[in-house]
Amino acid sequence: MSMQLPLAQLAMLLGAKLTDPSKGEVLVGNVASLDAAKEGDLAFLWDEKFAPDAETSQASAIVCKDAIEGQTCLLVADPQQAMLALLRQVHGMRFPTPRPGVHPQAFVDDTAELGADVSVGPNATVEAGAKLGDGCQVRANAYVGRNVVLGAGSVVHPNATILDHCQVGERSVVWSGAVIGKDGFGFVPVSGDRRDLSQGSIRIPQIGGVKIGSDVEIGSLTTVDRGALENTEIADRVIVDSQVHIAHNCKIEDNTVVVGRVALAGGARIGKNVYLLQASAVGQGRTVADGAIAGSGAQILYKDVAEGEEVLGWPAQPAMAERRLQVILTKLPKAWPELRKRVKQLEKKLAALGKTED
Amino acid sequence: MSMQLPLAQLAMLLGAKLTDPSKGEVLVGNVASLDAAKEGDLAFLWDEKFAPDAETSQASAIVCKDAIEGQTCLLVADPQQAMLALLRQVHGMRFPTPRPGVHPQAFVDDTAELGADVSVGPNATVEAGAKLGDGCQVRANAYVGRNVVLGAGSVVHPNATILDHCQVGERSVVWSGAVIGKDGFGFVPVSGDRRDLSQGSIRIPQIGGVKIGSDVEIGSLTTVDRGALENTEIADRVIVDSQVHIAHNCKIEDNTVVVGRVALAGGARIGKNVYLLQASAVGQGRTVADGAIAGSGAQILYKDVAEGEEVLGWPAQPAMAERRLQVILTKLPKAWPELRKRVKQLEKKLAALGKTED
Amino acid sequence: MSMQLPLAQLAMLLGAKLTDPSKGEVLVGNVASLDAAKEGDLAFLWDEKFAPDAETSQASAIVCKDAIEGQTCLLVADPQQAMLALLRQVHGMRFPTPRPGVHPQAFVDDTAELGADVSVGPNATVEAGAKLGDGCQVRANAYVGRNVVLGAGSVVHPNATILDHCQVGERSVVWSGAVIGKDGFGFVPVSGDRRDLSQGSIRIPQIGGVKIGSDVEIGSLTTVDRGALENTEIADRVIVDSQVHIAHNCKIEDNTVVVGRVALAGGARIGKNVYLLQASAVGQGRTVADGAIAGSGAQILYKDVAEGEEVLGWPAQPAMAERRLQVILTKLPKAWPELRKRVKQLEKKLAALGKTED
Repeated sequence: MSMQLPLAQLAMLLGAKLTDPSKGEVLVGNVASLDAAKEGDLAFLWDEKFAPDAETSQASAIVCKDAIEGQTCLLVADPQQAMLALLRQVHGMRFPTPRPGVHPQAFVDDTAELGADVSVGPNATVEAGAKLGDGCQVRANAYVGRNVVLGAGSVVHPNATILDHCQVGERSVVWSGAVIGKDGFGFVPVSGDRRDLSQGSIRIPQIGGVKIGSDVEIGSLTTVDRGALENTEIADRVIVDSQVHIAHNCKIEDNTVVVGRVALAGGARIGKNVYLLQASAVGQGRTVADGAIAGSGAQILYKDVAEGEEVLGWPAQPAMAERRLQVILTKLPKAWPELRKRVKQLEKKLAALGKTED
Repeated sequence: MSMQLPLAQLAMLLGAKLTDPSKGEVLVGNVASLDAAKEGDLAFLWDEKFAPDAETSQASAIVCKDAIEGQTCLLVADPQQAMLALLRQVHGMRFPTPRPGVHPQAFVDDTAELGADVSVGPNATVEAGAKLGDGCQVRANAYVGRNVVLGAGSVVHPNATILDHCQVGERSVVWSGAVIGKDGFGFVPVSGDRRDLSQGSIRIPQIGGVKIGSDVEIGSLTTVDRGALENTEIADRVIVDSQVHIAHNCKIEDNTVVVGRVALAGGARIGKNVYLLQASAVGQGRTVADGAIAGSGAQILYKDVAEGEEVLGWPAQPAMAERRLQVILTKLPKAWPELRKRVKQLEKKLAALGKTED
Repeated sequence: MSMQLPLAQLAMLLGAKLTDPSKGEVLVGNVASLDAAKEGDLAFLWDEKFAPDAETSQASAIVCKDAIEGQTCLLVADPQQAMLALLRQVHGMRFPTPRPGVHPQAFVDDTAELGADVSVGPNATVEAGAKLGDGCQVRANAYVGRNVVLGAGSVVHPNATILDHCQVGERSVVWSGAVIGKDGFGFVPVSGDRRDLSQGSIRIPQIGGVKIGSDVEIGSLTTVDRGALENTEIADRVIVDSQVHIAHNCKIEDNTVVVGRVALAGGARIGKNVYLLQASAVGQGRTVADGAIAGSGAQILYKDVAEGEEVLGWPAQPAMAERRLQVILTKLPKAWPELRKRVKQLEKKLAALGKTED
């Protein structure tokens, strides 16, 4: 936010009540978090857990629900909505939509079909038969392969790659460095025996595709491999972070959130509304049912995860059991030698007792 | 597969015997797995472990060795070979070889040498002194650096990067987003003392290269770093999945399979016919000998792995020991407090016994 | 090193004393490590730990501090400095600085400002308002976004991506496939309840940037996400390896070394002179203080790390405790059933004793 706005004007923009009308001329020029804000910054108390930070914040004004003593406040009914609205405006200014049109240094094949207001940036490639819906953005240096379908309003960021025949729904975003549609990792040993690689491996041609729904986000440097026969599928409103690996023929259902560095092996099935947290992994063909949570680093290798279940650990087990195990393991360096010692003393005493009795 | 073929014609193509000649006119238009197939699909029983799926499959026909009751079958001597042959045909249609020639929007340096039938896609770069063997494909937006050598028939996919002086053998494939030949991670603290970073680090110039053999596959977003003095080496028929990290001066011998998210630290030595499974890691200078298996997530940090050995765990140990450990750990949350309780009771009883005796 | 140099000339170049002047005409044509060197190679004994390799080395000559019996030596006061000086010369020849100028097949927006001797390679993109300091190199197929600032002498390698508004200091290097400035992973469930994803997630617009200092190295396929409100910050002389994930609003202070596959969750704070070793991870908002060491695979999830502390394990704990735990766990498969058996025997004996007494 490079402009400066007086608080009175900001109050009007946000539909807010300025608690101290004498501050109407004070200028703010930046949005900052409560604890990092300094004079000239605007901050938001959008979650009550940050209330202590609000009291001591150096921000010139705080957008909040109820007045905070000693602070200049802009009162609104829903601070989170107000924050999102303002951030969207600032974001729109900082990251303006590119002008429609194909850049003269882009390559778009003659047989590609472009909807209205599509933009294709410099050094981007759109191959034969690709279909780009209205308002799609293919940014500079991005690659869109043969017969790829992009729904209206989707964005392919610089240096992202969408290989042949893959489909992306509407308003979805593919970030820089992501690779959609690499062949699935399907090989069989020439020998026919899984343990014998001495003659090398034969590639099983992967003829499936990747089908991504609408309002999906695919993070940077994330791979979504094409299916062997059928499609790899990611449903609507799925949010995928960066450096995630989604192997061939996985299915992820609506609304699921996949955090950074997660790995899904071939054919993993992830239900709706699931959280797969940082660096968790799901083994080949495993199922994680609706509403489940895989905690950070959980390795779901040997057992499926039931609806709503929370798992943790390597290998994953119910979160409560894993937490108990962690507590025991933390104590083990002291507790294990101690217990052994106690058993040894018991043995000695009992032996001594035996001798006494003889 | 967008065409429709009658079973009689497919039988001829595959050299198969149609078990129910009355079905010769039935059309199939897609290849699917036994469990996912529906009417109009063709499925293959290429491994006997899927026999139960074959019995209940909804496919219009199944390619198999022996007739299956209640199913329309196309009998062949080797269903896996038949499947591969058909998949290759379908794959060839879906992913046709690009036309030979340099795209007008590519950049190929005048001093690069191109063999017969080489194709270079739009927005691709081939730098000075590069040598591309007959039939090489450098796809759109790929980068091939100075003096890089690509053997005949090799493919560099969109947005892949092969940096200066690296060598790739014949018929090898480098997938989108892979980076071959980044400098090895070689730094020494300015202070000269490994524990003292207070003056920053000096980069050790990395003058080695990367040498990749023939029939190798390098997955998407995989890095193979150049060697410090000598080459980092990957031998023939090595298969590397996506998001793998191969550090400077590693050596991987023939036929080895490296699954997704594996990490090899500097100077790791991997023998022939080895499996490094999902997210396993090999520490600096460690050796994994011929035919060994590193299970999912195994961290080979403190000990080399012997020929044919299977290891698991963090840190890695022989697989049987690790499996026993896992069983014990799963029981520990209940078993550990219970054992402590039993020891305490023994101590009490013994103390009581002592008192009785006094 | 493709040239051949006689040892006498090399001695002059390095300011070294040749121990056997009769060898002045012997040619060397390559630098190699002591153990891999063969006739015609030059090797360096730059760390005394390699002294045994020096004695048996097949190198034509060894650069070292003190003469080695049976070897032709080039004596210098500081072999490491001599090695670095020679490697830099060889490196400069193998990887020459590109000629200044904008390649005709690059796209540089008219409003971008380029300092003296800047080079922009083929198929590279430099967007509006970008400022490139003197001597910057934007290599082929790299992307530099709107209003990006690159300090003098910085290098952006092929297929690297620096998105809008990010700042990089002087002499810093961004390797191929790295992505700087992807939006931070900031989402809130539409439902307002963290456990309820059934209505999908709302993206929180990320309006912060990324600020990278001088003499920094960012490895291949590493992501540095932009901050939510404030910048994600990486200070001077920080060295980051490949496939590292640095989430929004992390701060890394001077000189810290971040090895391959490390993951920093949102808002992690890393002090000065820290080592984060291979695949270690730091949880959301966690602090790792100055001079600390996170060992390979350490997961810093539940506790901050104090100044100079060394941690290990999953979850991380002080390294000594984790090492003791590892020793115990290695023994557990044998020791646990054995201890249980001993307790059982004690119980039996005590019961028998009780009976005897009755």
